[in-house]
Amino acid sequence: MAEQRSPHDLPDVSGLSVAVLGGTGDQGRGLALRLAMAGHRVVIGSRSRERAEGAAGELGEGLPVSGAENAEAARGCDVVIVAVPWDGHRALLESLAADLAGKLVVDCVNPLGFDGKGPYALDVEEGSAAQQAEALLPDSRVVAAFHHVSAVVLLDPEIDHVDLDVLVLGDDREATDTVRALASRIPGVRGIYGGRLRNAHQVEALTANIIAINRRYKAHAGLRITDV
Amino acid sequence: MAEQRSPHDLPDVSGLSVAVLGGTGDQGRGLALRLAMAGHRVVIGSRSRERAEGAAGELGEGLPVSGAENAEAARGCDVVIVAVPWDGHRALLESLAADLAGKLVVDCVNPLGFDGKGPYALDVEEGSAAQQAEALLPDSRVVAAFHHVSAVVLLDPEIDHVDLDVLVLGDDREATDTVRALASRIPGVRGIYGGRLRNAHQVEALTANIIAINRRYKAHAGLRITDV
Repeated sequence: MAEQRSPHDLPDVSGLSVAVLGGTGDQGRGLALRLAMAGHRVVIGSRSRERAEGAAGELGEGLPVSGAENAEAARGCDVVIVAVPWDGHRALLESLAADLAGKLVVDCVNPLGFDGKGPYALDVEEGSAAQQAEALLPDSRVVAAFHHVSAVVLLDPEIDHVDLDVLVLGDDREATDTVRALASRIPGVRGIYGGRLRNAHQVEALTANIIAINRRYKAHAGLRITDV
Repeated sequence: MAEQRSPHDLPDVSGLSVAVLGGTGDQGRGLALRLAMAGHRVVIGSRSRERAEGAAGELGEGLPVSGAENAEAARGCDVVIVAVPWDGHRALLESLAADLAGKLVVDCVNPLGFDGKGPYALDVEEGSAAQQAEALLPDSRVVAAFHHVSAVVLLDPEIDHVDLDVLVLGDDREATDTVRALASRIPGVRGIYGGRLRNAHQVEALTANIIAINRRYKAHAGLRITDV
């Protein structure tokens, strides 16, 4: 029986280890840095162990970050953040389905295109990157989150308070609560429930609007949810 | 020649009159109320003049709000907000194309469905409600805005500061600046440029997520854009 609880209650996730697949990219390194600074053991995953270890080493002395090939990173951690470029998303998850079985998988991939008029959202056969992950990983719990974090902000050592809310989407309450708690480990960030996975497309696609906002205002924009 | 200007500069829109088509609904009445409180002459439009006049009268004594049939409301105002239910959107705009010629049309319609699992975004042939409006109204300037405003908040006489940013999307800088300025006439609200009209779908669809947030947190959630 589920007990009555506040939607603001969060579990203690301080002991969870986190893999970041595609973690040598800007978004991946930014998330790895902030979660390691919060005390989590983090493994940056890459196709190349050397590049993963290099990226981990560059994040700073004394942080609990290491590097590994994607499959080893996935197997060795409790939570696995998928931060690969969209065009490698399907192939990577197909190849790692067995390694990701039983894991909590957090998809933060934004399927976007760019042309002379700027960014735009791509159509995804499954509806969204997160739903594609869910379709490819039947033995994992899939949550969508961290779409709008600015890599520039995450990687800026001068910024100790990150001013944004992370929308966390999924159909499994325990899984979304865990990822909300993980997001909230970054000072300034709140992990806010953002709906079911079938409503992930527009959250991913909204990254195109945020890029347009960044260009117009010369900003590193994020979202805050009011009245929550 | 466009002069160099700050993205935060806004034109003076205090003299603009505003029609709200479908203005007897909650969202339409809320916008009509707040814009009239800001001093704009507002005409609530409806298929029924009587219902339009009734809705205008209920908004309060002394406000510059009147009611009219949709076509008359459209012809008589500078800016026309389209706030009809999605299932009447296409037919209404087709019927009013001539009345809306030369007008600045602000589409705030959210194509959503609801089932046992809650709200979800509907597919729209043209990409979004706003793009449908653009396709149906070749002689109007079409901007998308006001998707996430809470009618409950707008209509609450106790709330004098509305805590949200209004994303304003469109391809015509003068038109989006005008609508940004109009949104910013509501105390607390900022009108923020949110990208081109081709990126309107995800802003409309995000209303499904906001409804999910409202249900989870028992809130009237809105968005703020950080670092802008």
